[in-house]
Amino acid sequence: MLVNSRNPLNIGAAARAMSNFGFLHLRVVNPYDLAFREARSAVDASALLANAEEFDSVAKAVADCSLVVGTSAIGRRAPQHPVRRLDEAARLIRKRLTSSRVALLFGSEKRGLSNEDLSHCHWLLRIPTLEKHRSMNLGQAVAVCLYEIARGPKSAAQPEKRNAASSGELERITSILLDAFRSSGYLKPRSDATTEEKIRRLVRRLNLSSSDAELCLGMLRQILWKLRSRIES
Amino acid sequence: MLVNSRNPLNIGAAARAMSNFGFLHLRVVNPYDLAFREARSAVDASALLANAEEFDSVAKAVADCSLVVGTSAIGRRAPQHPVRRLDEAARLIRKRLTSSRVALLFGSEKRGLSNEDLSHCHWLLRIPTLEKHRSMNLGQAVAVCLYEIARGPKSAAQPEKRNAASSGELERITSILLDAFRSSGYLKPRSDATTEEKIRRLVRRLNLSSSDAELCLGMLRQILWKLRSRIES
Repeated sequence: MLVNSRNPLNIGAAARAMSNFGFLHLRVVNPYDLAFREARSAVDASALLANAEEFDSVAKAVADCSLVVGTSAIGRRAPQHPVRRLDEAARLIRKRLTSSRVALLFGSEKRGLSNEDLSHCHWLLRIPTLEKHRSMNLGQAVAVCLYEIARGPKSAAQPEKRNAASSGELERITSILLDAFRSSGYLKPRSDATTEEKIRRLVRRLNLSSSDAELCLGMLRQILWKLRSRIES
Repeated sequence: MLVNSRNPLNIGAAARAMSNFGFLHLRVVNPYDLAFREARSAVDASALLANAEEFDSVAKAVADCSLVVGTSAIGRRAPQHPVRRLDEAARLIRKRLTSSRVALLFGSEKRGLSNEDLSHCHWLLRIPTLEKHRSMNLGQAVAVCLYEIARGPKSAAQPEKRNAASSGELERITSILLDAFRSSGYLKPRSDATTEEKIRRLVRRLNLSSSDAELCLGMLRQILWKLRSRIES
């Protein structure tokens, strides 16, 4: 998934690497250049590029995914998330892919992923580059990640038994939690984006299964209803 | 080592990947565009690009190397050489690099390495791409190969730094949650042990760190306080 990519050549290169390593579903969030589908750098991945899905927010783009992984050069900001090295990350991603959808997010060439983008991620992945030359070309970073994820004996991956909650479910929990915090006075009625992102990250760290997510939603709805009935009375 | 590369952008991208993964010596054989040293795609690898050595034949370029490995999409021609998959190839290259120089040859974007070029190689390396989408972008192929060669022999996952919440913290969360559920009417005032255990197990599944546990406690206390102030009023 490419977020705010500036250069259509890089989108094309990402599509090419996807086709090289057998990945099919490219999603693009707010590309700078709407002509990206014509990128010549896609070479024989033009069909993949033509089928790329376009979204206007990360939340919508990851809604049906049960694991959302951000890529980051780190360093500039203190990571609020667990960070896994590509090889370990790839093992976890492969495992999850046997049972559900995984989104791998790449940020813009200039700024990477924003804090808001990162707040949708369960954890971050780091390509082990030299400390002093961390910043990779977008197309090359995509190729390296997909190579690592595609590697390995496929038989090694074992299906996970529990169904992880989808990002859509997690986002519903996040928004009902925010409502409850506002109703209870834990948050001010118009809390800032940083606090929202903090809550969103917290919910992603909880490692909820789909059935736990449903349970949590039920609990929270009841609490919220009670909190609100107090305010209206 | 880039042989007959056509596009200076690709030479720059190769230099960038080299600097990302800690490789220093770029050699270029008969580049089509002599202005390659100005490639902006090198980003912060311009010093590496400026120091690239230029040769007019593969023979001269590999003269001081004890192992010469060609990269090839294979397929078009019957391989006259042993072909090794990238992961195995990388192991052999790493081993050799401890004692002497190794050349890794990449051919032109259009034709790859010629038979003459290949005749200088000890063996060939193949990146495991899909059969039907073998041809990789030059810069991406360089990045994937160098990533694999640079990978540590110990791919041991780095330990996570987060401190897991203690059982005491989890139990405080559990009991305050139960209070909140009773106050909100989600649970009956005297709920049975089974329900309590269900909530307790749920809290244990959340994979909370110690600081997340503290955050959750603060949130729950505020909600509980609000719920109770309703009842008492």
